[in-house]
Amino acid sequence: MMKVGIIGLGLMGGSFALALKNQYEDVEILGYDHNDQHCLEALQLGLADKISDDLEDFYTLDLVVLAIPVEGIIALLPHFQELPETTTLIDFGGIKEPILRTVPPSIRRNFVAGHPMAGTEYSGPQAALPDLFRGKVMVLCNLDESGEHQRALVKRVFTDLGMKLFYMDAKEHDEHAAFISHMPHALSYALANAVMKQENPKAIIALAGGGFRDMSRIAKSSPVMWSEIFRQNKTNLLQAIACFQSELQKCAELVQNESWDELKEWMTEANRLHEIL
Amino acid sequence: MMKVGIIGLGLMGGSFALALKNQYEDVEILGYDHNDQHCLEALQLGLADKISDDLEDFYTLDLVVLAIPVEGIIALLPHFQELPETTTLIDFGGIKEPILRTVPPSIRRNFVAGHPMAGTEYSGPQAALPDLFRGKVMVLCNLDESGEHQRALVKRVFTDLGMKLFYMDAKEHDEHAAFISHMPHALSYALANAVMKQENPKAIIALAGGGFRDMSRIAKSSPVMWSEIFRQNKTNLLQAIACFQSELQKCAELVQNESWDELKEWMTEANRLHEIL
Repeated sequence: MMKVGIIGLGLMGGSFALALKNQYEDVEILGYDHNDQHCLEALQLGLADKISDDLEDFYTLDLVVLAIPVEGIIALLPHFQELPETTTLIDFGGIKEPILRTVPPSIRRNFVAGHPMAGTEYSGPQAALPDLFRGKVMVLCNLDESGEHQRALVKRVFTDLGMKLFYMDAKEHDEHAAFISHMPHALSYALANAVMKQENPKAIIALAGGGFRDMSRIAKSSPVMWSEIFRQNKTNLLQAIACFQSELQKCAELVQNESWDELKEWMTEANRLHEIL
Repeated sequence: MMKVGIIGLGLMGGSFALALKNQYEDVEILGYDHNDQHCLEALQLGLADKISDDLEDFYTLDLVVLAIPVEGIIALLPHFQELPETTTLIDFGGIKEPILRTVPPSIRRNFVAGHPMAGTEYSGPQAALPDLFRGKVMVLCNLDESGEHQRALVKRVFTDLGMKLFYMDAKEHDEHAAFISHMPHALSYALANAVMKQENPKAIIALAGGGFRDMSRIAKSSPVMWSEIFRQNKTNLLQAIACFQSELQKCAELVQNESWDELKEWMTEANRLHEIL
């Protein structure tokens, strides 16, 4: 019997619960969420077997997942000061250095810093999907600082769920995540706002094809969650935005100067991304 | 028996051929493409029943589609100087004003300016899909300048194929298309290039989740086709890029100044797009 605690019964925590229930016969899930409605829905949807609002109930479980926004993780971590050697505490936060800085030293070996590269633009227990994680990348940061038991457990569970494990330094993760995830979210929000500010957005949006739908999809994402990620990864994000801005400005100048051959080359370089994606 | 000519046997022309063959029992398709390999593939894939390299063979068909890049359309239109009253010539170009300016007055009533808001990032006959157009928007521009027979035929055919018809002024179309399609392509190319210019793009891309994949998908699109569209819609595109740049700059400044509440508001405004998308 694996006893699992899931703190945050939304898209990520809920999907993790469904995946565990699908994968293992013998798993018991204790849920925690500051939103009572989410607790009710989680019980109804089978994302949790029981609910508790007492963090102490989580201290002795086998695996506890912090599936809440980054600043919630940072606020909650000091409440975990003493854990049994066999308890594994993992977080799913989208940025790792600020989180690792706040892990109490007394539980550093219990703790694993994880970032599942999966998600949708939806949130809440209803958004949970049993296959959200399957085939996706699970990044584990500074794993050598976690205990041997914790490393083994986490590797086994996320491999069982069909994820590809990537090991990475937290600093490197935060730099890369700014490029691959945080900056693209800024673009998608900016694209949505640029269209919404036009005189007749409805007439424009009537013409939306697949490209625009794809580009604007993540502009649906939660402002609370993403403003916290932007805050916590400020420096890397601003650097990634600046790199993007200089590429877009280059494009605008090539168009302005009617340098069509160079524009074609610039587009051809961009095509090359898909040789490695 | 409807006799149809398809000039350009790639993604768009090929998909139109497949859709027609699925929809109507009695349709004969004559194909034309400057690429011999595409002609062969089109015959093998059933996108055309016959191939001709003589434009004159197309003059007396019921419906002739120009499914080639914008500058090809502009170069080809002067070859159509006299058409029977019952011939309908339609183009699928992504920008309409420059095309309408080059339609010979003698065939203006034969001509319909269309833009199916559908596509994928792939090209060539192999990319053709029978359902590419189904459920999508077909924009028809300045339709009152087309003949009565042509208006009726085009409305019937594209409705039969399951498309939603939108009527619009060409100028308005080109402004809106800059926002909904051309500028987003510039963003996607710029995003791909920003990542590719980093020290270790492979390590960054290893972390790619659905958001990045969606945002970078159209960076696969054809440089020839898109550099022509950027060229032909230069002014509107630069304006749309400038609007986007000012939104992204606003985001960067809110992050820089740590105006987290305003950032959250800015993201919440972006969320509103999806109420009307």
